Amino acid sequence: MTFTFEVTILGGSGGPIENDCQSFLIRPYGSDVVDSICVDAGTGLGSLYNLVAQIGTSDEAKVNDYYNQNVTTRKVFNDVNVAYTNGFSSSLKKVLSEKYQNLNHWETTILLYNGIRDYYITHPHLDHIAGLIINSPLAYEISFGTSKNVYGLTSTKEALTDHIFNDTIWPSLNKLKYPKINLNALKQCRTHDIANFPWTTTPFKVNHGCGACNGEPNHSTIYCIRHNRTSEAIVVCGDLENKASIDTLDSYLQTFTNWLTNNILAENFKGILIECSSQTVPDGTPLFGHLSPPHLISLLKLLLKKYNDIDQTISELNVIVTHVKYTCGNEDPRLTVLSELRNLAKFNNLHNLNFSYASQGTTYYL
Amino acid sequence: MTFTFEVTILGGSGGPIENDCQSFLIRPYGSDVVDSICVDAGTGLGSLYNLVAQIGTSDEAKVNDYYNQNVTTRKVFNDVNVAYTNGFSSSLKKVLSEKYQNLNHWETTILLYNGIRDYYITHPHLDHIAGLIINSPLAYEISFGTSKNVYGLTSTKEALTDHIFNDTIWPSLNKLKYPKINLNALKQCRTHDIANFPWTTTPFKVNHGCGACNGEPNHSTIYCIRHNRTSEAIVVCGDLENKASIDTLDSYLQTFTNWLTNNILAENFKGILIECSSQTVPDGTPLFGHLSPPHLISLLKLLLKKYNDIDQTISELNVIVTHVKYTCGNEDPRLTVLSELRNLAKFNNLHNLNFSYASQGTTYYL
Repeated sequence: MTFTFEVTILGGSGGPIENDCQSFLIRPYGSDVVDSICVDAGTGLGSLYNLVAQIGTSDEAKVNDYYNQNVTTRKVFNDVNVAYTNGFSSSLKKVLSEKYQNLNHWETTILLYNGIRDYYITHPHLDHIAGLIINSPLAYEISFGTSKNVYGLTSTKEALTDHIFNDTIWPSLNKLKYPKINLNALKQCRTHDIANFPWTTTPFKVNHGCGACNGEPNHSTIYCIRHNRTSEAIVVCGDLENKASIDTLDSYLQTFTNWLTNNILAENFKGILIECSSQTVPDGTPLFGHLSPPHLISLLKLLLKKYNDIDQTISELNVIVTHVKYTCGNEDPRLTVLSELRNLAKFNNLHNLNFSYASQGTTYYL
Repeated sequence: MTFTFEVTILGGSGGPIENDCQSFLIRPYGSDVVDSICVDAGTGLGSLYNLVAQIGTSDEAKVNDYYNQNVTTRKVFNDVNVAYTNGFSSSLKKVLSEKYQNLNHWETTILLYNGIRDYYITHPHLDHIAGLIINSPLAYEISFGTSKNVYGLTSTKEALTDHIFNDTIWPSLNKLKYPKINLNALKQCRTHDIANFPWTTTPFKVNHGCGACNGEPNHSTIYCIRHNRTSEAIVVCGDLENKASIDTLDSYLQTFTNWLTNNILAENFKGILIECSSQTVPDGTPLFGHLSPPHLISLLKLLLKKYNDIDQTISELNVIVTHVKYTCGNEDPRLTVLSELRNLAKFNNLHNLNFSYASQGTTYYL
């Protein structure tokens, strides 16, 4: 098995716990520098610091056990076939211990923060941006800090401009004379070069429910990140729903799956990080713009079928489930969702899907 | 020494670390129920969970040592004369162990979250509200959850309505048919009854810099919380600056100090939580709407003088410093600020001020 990407889960959930909100640090597999990109930024420096402080300790293997079920290791969250490690990747730990061995934890954290050159935001809900915003003054303080580009579809850029960096919720840091935080709009389906890495990303608009009061449709983004030379790719999803029936994809998801099957060979599709916010609920129960296990299974099934229709077969796909919402009760909804997905996949004869849950502090090799 | 209030620091700083942002849980001293109020809510459930999980462990005594100076206990942050404990207060731990001993950590966290009936927000900057917002869906999920009131000056309420609960940054949960999150405007200097406790609070508008781009003045709030029967009071400040010279208070701070000295006897003034975001910088260096040690010392000196002018003497005052911003470098700015304040107080013969720093996870008895 060869790998192309390393994905470290800085935060994996969709709340309501504020310090485990969706944020994925992505870097080239085996890289010998600290540079990375971030898809979403619900958490940031705080999570980075915790991971730095845990390097080499037994805490690296532990996952917060909110539900008191003696779930103290990552193993229960991961498929036996997925390649992962506790905490940062081996290559990143190697870089830190060899090139930056004299730094203390906080200096190392700042180094990693500086290494995040680009943020790709799926949508402007606070659980996907809070870390980026609250961390941002550090980018202005440090003399060796490079500027950061924040990317999102136009609606995301507009929301950040109008409602966040507006001198009311946060200083308009993006409008200073020498901004270190630059907001940029991406076009739906338009491939964009990722700076510093030989990668591109292509954003796809998806549905994400409607406003609770105004009823206006909310949108979010799926990013496909592709290595230029090998054409190997991963898919990273924001919050999403399928607005069509369970057996059909809505037009946004059709656009995405058409593009994917036309552009990424089945054998190059290295994995998908995709939300499944809630456990299975009776049909018709509102999901507030999210997926539950039956919907996710159906979506994956339709995607696999689309590959089959063009005579390609996905022999094995790592599905990293994200954004489960912590709920009341005694059972860990992350494990419930995982178990339901595995059972549904079995029932549907989808034996080529490896389901894991993106627990905070895991690094996946994809 | 008798106590009236218990103040638990859920988050003490002004960022840029997103999981230690200002949030203070306040309850009556020795209370045998879990009810509380929160002043600011930069953090919430995540901090509550960590404190619950640490009860009875050695982690209770530890403070995150970002700067690697072997600062592993709270002692270095606290004046020898201030009464404090590690983690939650003794009375809260007693309630949890006696009345709720069968709950797991997450259930206990939810219990405490439900116990927060009212939030008093000093201003709508994200480091003061992120926890409140991201936690809010939990209030809608649970059948035993009571509704929550969020209070702030009109500008705070408007900012939360226009820019946060607007279906773009967050669902308009406050506008649902049966809202569990209610936004309320308070009037400057107008005393307001705190529900569930025999307390009132009086909010005072203060200056907090100007918009980075629009140049418009930002404002924040100081809350004075007073016990109805004993008239004992604490003061809890949001971000603030003194727009006048270092030897004079601006009109907002004059209004506040006049009210305080006219309404709270020196002997009943139990403590003040007040920001000192940055260490001392050369005169004229922009502080972006915050205080540094010389400014805080001057403000306290003018306050003490005002009490003296009406023939009252503050024999001893607990000053709990908050909102220090973590900066680059090798020295912990929390300790630097504390040390500078103590030296300046000594130099100014202010021997009746006990300076502590509000490190995350400390409970003060005031």
